[in-house]
Amino acid sequence: MALQASTRSLQQRRAFSSAQTSKRVSVTKVRATAIEAENYVKQAPQSLVRPGIDTEDSMRARFEKVIRNAQDSICNAISEIDGKPFHQDAWTRPGGGGGISRVLQDGNVWEKAGVNVSVVYGTMPPEAYRAATGNAEKLKNKGDGGRVPFFAAGISSVMHPRNPHCPTMHFNYRYFETEEWNGIPGQWWFGGGTDITPSYVVPEDMKHFHGTYKAVCDRHDPAYYEKFRTWCDEYFLIKHRGERRGLGGIFFDDLNDRNPEDILKFSTDAVNNVVEAYCPIIKKHMNDPYTPEEKEWQQIRRGRYVEFNLVYDRGTTFGLKTGGRIESILMSMPQTASWLYDHQPKAGSPEAELLDACRNPRVWV
Amino acid sequence: MALQASTRSLQQRRAFSSAQTSKRVSVTKVRATAIEAENYVKQAPQSLVRPGIDTEDSMRARFEKVIRNAQDSICNAISEIDGKPFHQDAWTRPGGGGGISRVLQDGNVWEKAGVNVSVVYGTMPPEAYRAATGNAEKLKNKGDGGRVPFFAAGISSVMHPRNPHCPTMHFNYRYFETEEWNGIPGQWWFGGGTDITPSYVVPEDMKHFHGTYKAVCDRHDPAYYEKFRTWCDEYFLIKHRGERRGLGGIFFDDLNDRNPEDILKFSTDAVNNVVEAYCPIIKKHMNDPYTPEEKEWQQIRRGRYVEFNLVYDRGTTFGLKTGGRIESILMSMPQTASWLYDHQPKAGSPEAELLDACRNPRVWV
Repeated sequence: MALQASTRSLQQRRAFSSAQTSKRVSVTKVRATAIEAENYVKQAPQSLVRPGIDTEDSMRARFEKVIRNAQDSICNAISEIDGKPFHQDAWTRPGGGGGISRVLQDGNVWEKAGVNVSVVYGTMPPEAYRAATGNAEKLKNKGDGGRVPFFAAGISSVMHPRNPHCPTMHFNYRYFETEEWNGIPGQWWFGGGTDITPSYVVPEDMKHFHGTYKAVCDRHDPAYYEKFRTWCDEYFLIKHRGERRGLGGIFFDDLNDRNPEDILKFSTDAVNNVVEAYCPIIKKHMNDPYTPEEKEWQQIRRGRYVEFNLVYDRGTTFGLKTGGRIESILMSMPQTASWLYDHQPKAGSPEAELLDACRNPRVWV
Repeated sequence: MALQASTRSLQQRRAFSSAQTSKRVSVTKVRATAIEAENYVKQAPQSLVRPGIDTEDSMRARFEKVIRNAQDSICNAISEIDGKPFHQDAWTRPGGGGGISRVLQDGNVWEKAGVNVSVVYGTMPPEAYRAATGNAEKLKNKGDGGRVPFFAAGISSVMHPRNPHCPTMHFNYRYFETEEWNGIPGQWWFGGGTDITPSYVVPEDMKHFHGTYKAVCDRHDPAYYEKFRTWCDEYFLIKHRGERRGLGGIFFDDLNDRNPEDILKFSTDAVNNVVEAYCPIIKKHMNDPYTPEEKEWQQIRRGRYVEFNLVYDRGTTFGLKTGGRIESILMSMPQTASWLYDHQPKAGSPEAELLDACRNPRVWV
């Protein structure tokens, strides 16, 4: 295993807790909705679901197994290409659940690559529930009283390569449950997706990436790819710019329209194809020569990535609102990003071509 | 005047409009709440308020004069230190109003310094109204029907220097009016503030900066400084980190508790002291030697700045929701920023000292 295990110093949490009790200024609500703080552990427990309650054959336990296996195999594949190991932080919460964050920073091929697994349960404020589900309509007139009991398990990852000819890739697969609350019956759903963010358009690469996911989708439902590809283009829209952050992939949420077993199979197939969809593109371009101008363009696109994540991304919003582990949530941030005033690529340039593809999503396969 | 006038090509707006009409994907609501698009003009009109309606002695016209004069004098002072001119984009809206954006990019002293003036009026959706006023309570049960007639004039600025020993500075002064809507009577208020974001703590510099603003406040109300300093520390809190983005200054909003003439005088005094509060600190440190590690720390602090602006800043939120001019709104972004996974300054280091001051606001004067 390409891992460096580590325990975490308590320094950060102590400093935070001292900020909380400071008498020097009165800030009434700092992370008022926070889930309790995490404890760092040397080794992640065999399972993070509720011991003795969520049995091995429960969806919770089985989904956890899928994402933990995926975390292992994906990190191994990335590490093998990069030549550098991932660093691991594992943590549990006093009330149950926990997570495993793995990050490869300052690598040879990747500036920053992170793969997180987390299993969280407890209760959350209704506003976090609203952020967690795309289907918030039904909550609209239910008031803000009380807290919603929930379970959430997920794997999420962003990988930012150094070379501007190597695309950034993101994936996230999650399983969610809520229990009965304020007259709303308990619910379950799956969500997820894999999407790609190149700085330059290379049609063969996009054919390979989208083609891999079309094949995954087609194995489970012939309608999936078209539906989830379109959803991806809609979801990753940076509304204030009228452009997507990248060139799409698949995205789905609130998926509960069939037997959960079938959706588990689909999610498993999707997360298990991340390496096949992404790594060949990296291997092809990791040694491409590039100019300072191409690097700058990559940095500008990274700035757009940051804009999307902090302003629109539902996972980030949910994490920040529930007081999740900040370093895990913001692991998706690029190591470096740039904003230039009113930057406009020259008409006809490869940069303008990328922008056009972000503004007018294309069908790649 | 240290200015380079320019007209803007229509390229960007055309590209955006083509994204809107694309048949290739159905994104139903791209900037659905947008104010109509701007027209770039060679020269900013003498006045941007309603011709023939907002007379010279109206608060609207007088406030505009204050902020346009301030834009001139501040840009001149900054440009003189930097040695590079500001670039200007001026624009008007078909329905009235407009703005003047000035930016100095890739300067000798500043990586990016922007000073914007805008005068906007029309109607806005209630959600934008909520973002615009801190006092959103009164809107709570008023439903979402219709649009709120408003007038807003403001100056806003962020300056990001190159040298990590030179602080970033932000200021913003604005005057707002709404007309009667859904049974809520018309309102007016002033808002604003100046705050400083160093990467290192230099107590004398903070004494100078805060001292300048304490003197400004004391000239108008002996209670102002204490009130607005505390408000500033509360407002610029990055909630998910439990730390402020910088070392404070003054901040106020919804100010309408006395004669508007008095608040205009105070706002004028405050914006006219930006140069005195900030420039001596820059002149003192602009040639300080620095290490790559100090530069990296500055970049990490810039990342926090981005987090605050995109997640919490009311001006940014308001701008993005109302479909304001993106390049003007996001001019506040630093040219470069960085995110490192789980970065922790060494105990006792100057970096840890800054972090402590961001977590536990200090009283500087």
